[in-house]
Amino acid sequence: MHATSSRPHAALPQAFVDSLSTTFGQRFSTAEAVRAHHGHDESHFPDALPDAVVWPHTTAEVVAIVRACRAHNVPIIAYGAGSSLEGHILALHGGISIDFSEMNKVLTVHHEDLDVVIQPGVTRKQLNAELHGTGLFFPVDPGADATLGGMASTRASGTNAVRYGTMRENVLGFEAVLADGTVIRTGSRARKSSAGYDLTHLLVGSEGTLALITEMTVRLHPLPEAVSGAVCAFADIDSAVHCVIQTIQLGIPVARIELLDTLTVQAINRYSKTTLREAPMLFFEFHGSPASVEEQAQTVQEIARDNGGQDFEWATRPEDRSRLWQARHDTYFACLNLRPGCRGITTDVCVPISRLADCIAGTRDDIAASGLIAPIVGHVGDGNFHTLILVDPDNADEIARAEALNRGIVARALAMDGTCTGEHGVGFGKQEFLVPEHGSGAVDAMRALKRALDPHNLFNPGKVVPPVGASTDR
Amino acid sequence: MHATSSRPHAALPQAFVDSLSTTFGQRFSTAEAVRAHHGHDESHFPDALPDAVVWPHTTAEVVAIVRACRAHNVPIIAYGAGSSLEGHILALHGGISIDFSEMNKVLTVHHEDLDVVIQPGVTRKQLNAELHGTGLFFPVDPGADATLGGMASTRASGTNAVRYGTMRENVLGFEAVLADGTVIRTGSRARKSSAGYDLTHLLVGSEGTLALITEMTVRLHPLPEAVSGAVCAFADIDSAVHCVIQTIQLGIPVARIELLDTLTVQAINRYSKTTLREAPMLFFEFHGSPASVEEQAQTVQEIARDNGGQDFEWATRPEDRSRLWQARHDTYFACLNLRPGCRGITTDVCVPISRLADCIAGTRDDIAASGLIAPIVGHVGDGNFHTLILVDPDNADEIARAEALNRGIVARALAMDGTCTGEHGVGFGKQEFLVPEHGSGAVDAMRALKRALDPHNLFNPGKVVPPVGASTDR
Repeated sequence: MHATSSRPHAALPQAFVDSLSTTFGQRFSTAEAVRAHHGHDESHFPDALPDAVVWPHTTAEVVAIVRACRAHNVPIIAYGAGSSLEGHILALHGGISIDFSEMNKVLTVHHEDLDVVIQPGVTRKQLNAELHGTGLFFPVDPGADATLGGMASTRASGTNAVRYGTMRENVLGFEAVLADGTVIRTGSRARKSSAGYDLTHLLVGSEGTLALITEMTVRLHPLPEAVSGAVCAFADIDSAVHCVIQTIQLGIPVARIELLDTLTVQAINRYSKTTLREAPMLFFEFHGSPASVEEQAQTVQEIARDNGGQDFEWATRPEDRSRLWQARHDTYFACLNLRPGCRGITTDVCVPISRLADCIAGTRDDIAASGLIAPIVGHVGDGNFHTLILVDPDNADEIARAEALNRGIVARALAMDGTCTGEHGVGFGKQEFLVPEHGSGAVDAMRALKRALDPHNLFNPGKVVPPVGASTDR
Repeated sequence: MHATSSRPHAALPQAFVDSLSTTFGQRFSTAEAVRAHHGHDESHFPDALPDAVVWPHTTAEVVAIVRACRAHNVPIIAYGAGSSLEGHILALHGGISIDFSEMNKVLTVHHEDLDVVIQPGVTRKQLNAELHGTGLFFPVDPGADATLGGMASTRASGTNAVRYGTMRENVLGFEAVLADGTVIRTGSRARKSSAGYDLTHLLVGSEGTLALITEMTVRLHPLPEAVSGAVCAFADIDSAVHCVIQTIQLGIPVARIELLDTLTVQAINRYSKTTLREAPMLFFEFHGSPASVEEQAQTVQEIARDNGGQDFEWATRPEDRSRLWQARHDTYFACLNLRPGCRGITTDVCVPISRLADCIAGTRDDIAASGLIAPIVGHVGDGNFHTLILVDPDNADEIARAEALNRGIVARALAMDGTCTGEHGVGFGKQEFLVPEHGSGAVDAMRALKRALDPHNLFNPGKVVPPVGASTDR
């Protein structure tokens, strides 16, 4: 299915190694263990090791690396936390992995403007920890404690995008290094602008293929005055999904609305020692003023009841909510635990909300027909859901069946005017779906943009834009 | 200051004229009056007439025009309603104006998904009229009854962007024709996607320089259950602005919050026969459930009182609100009316909200020093405000002073991390500010994108990206 991880590539030129060793000392490494750590992500794809790893501290250092790589034609892979799911950070063509984890300073919190300037290696949890006491928070929450640079690069979202938006809505601007070593600034701290092409949104989701992010400004949000959470069990997935659809269509500003199928709830109960009712379930969270939270909760409870939902079980104490959402976040590992030794292949389609019930029903039938184990969870308020297909990594037949299952799920979503990936990104795992989703004209346009900004294909080669002729229009 | 409007350009080749006449019949015109109508917008720049105008009805017809123009090297200017303010639609290099006003069908309302597919010539008022009875509306409201294609192209916003976002947040996807005649689709109807480069946001704000929009999908919003509006007078602008800042910082989801200075209120009273108190004033609108509207209004009233605001005057009846907002929308003409025979030069800076009071205070001082008449109005919830500098179009000295005033206002906004244009766009009127705002590296990157998608500079030449060397980094 995919490019193999072992394409031959020239080793690093000695002059290049010497130069980076001299400049970076201990912060440059060609050690096997270090390369191995940077040569795999959370996907099921085979490892593909970079030839070296470097940890810059400043934008000037990133520029120096880019210039050296350009001079010696060495591919560059930006590395955040390694939590990507589609092979984004695999060094398919060798080269150097730039690990941004030591560019992790929160630079300036602008309390009054509800924004913060950070380095790209700051992680989601770190940022919110450093914001403690300010009354502000950064909402985008993909589960993993990813770096903000990585989250911007994959256009990540997660459980509360339904209210606060994805990285697309929450990045105001970047400082970034282009492939010729030029440092650019995109955007400003103004809330809106019509001043020229939107370079910021071009870089959001570009997965390190167009530029290297060295600084970013992201929106913050006031901590809600009141928060309440609840879970509600349903007789079947359809009823749960219809509850979601009606909630969204009424414009209720719910902060989180997550679907878990019965198998997922069982996995969570086993893994997180919870005692949730083992049925299809929605997890809710409401943010706002006390009155508005109460109003939202009441309305949603009525909608749930109309759809045969059991009574809400409330989690009003912060520690109860934390336990609940920690359990939700641990879903990935809880589900992997259903089948010891397995790996997960995660699907990530997103469809218009009107098609969500049909899309999930069809997916469930596909799973049953495949004979594979694949729990379903979803950020259903956005029309986005995942199946985690559990496969034996040594069983080629199972992997082939899982990939076929994924292809079928994507094809259905595209036929419903949806997307092959709601939040995980393309990496190389989703490349084959870009032409079917966007058409060859749009993908050619993407290819032209890549060539315009990175004519020597220095940045993360082999990712996002598929090779010419890799797939055809649907 | 600007490129002149009378650059020599070759007349249209006869073969081209013959071909389009044959295909489009009455929908192709080289008549002087038609060309004159398409050769000026609402800016103060001298007219620049296209050599011909064509009214396509279908995407296929747009493709045919693009192919003919490419073959004969004829520039193409996309034309919506002609309400742009920075010379966007002026035919600086001649060529053909494609008037999209007859591609104005509302194609499909997806009630359940809160989106609608339209042709680009649909106007804002038309769309909301056609949505009547659906319980949904399209919120972006720049005042003028612009076309949606034009609004997307300038990344327009207006009075209620503070709650509903700008065109950036409200376009889900496009069908568009590239400079080689390829038809592409960008985006999908899914609420979010990580599937490749964000072509949709690259086209939003690109002012017809990268592609021609032939269809678009935009978000709709549920009509709020309750709406209430109010006006509140303040002792001075500073107090009004501080009321705005505190409202935004508290995260109150106010739908509209508009500043009018005393001169503007006087102009409105005279033009719209209103009896508003002639003092700096905020216009508010609150949307939501009845309880939430009440809560918002109460909180904002307290904030206003803390800042010395007079009591709110409520406009709860729809007809009173309509009159109020119509008066607000007529501000442009009301202010022009302050000085019969004048033209307006509109500034459009946007700054982080924390700098708004200083920015407006400095602007006020600049206006006083300039000796010019220039009322101030603003979408202050976004940090965006306009001054409408009233000039005698035949007085070169006044125009020069007005341009100097505008430059000073922009320089201050940029020094405050803001933008030269919050919502009007670049056209050619703002080109000189792009390098000072973004730096030459970012502008070079924009230039590379333009070359990649439109290598023969067919689409709206002379707009958005400034000529090389036109201005330098600040």
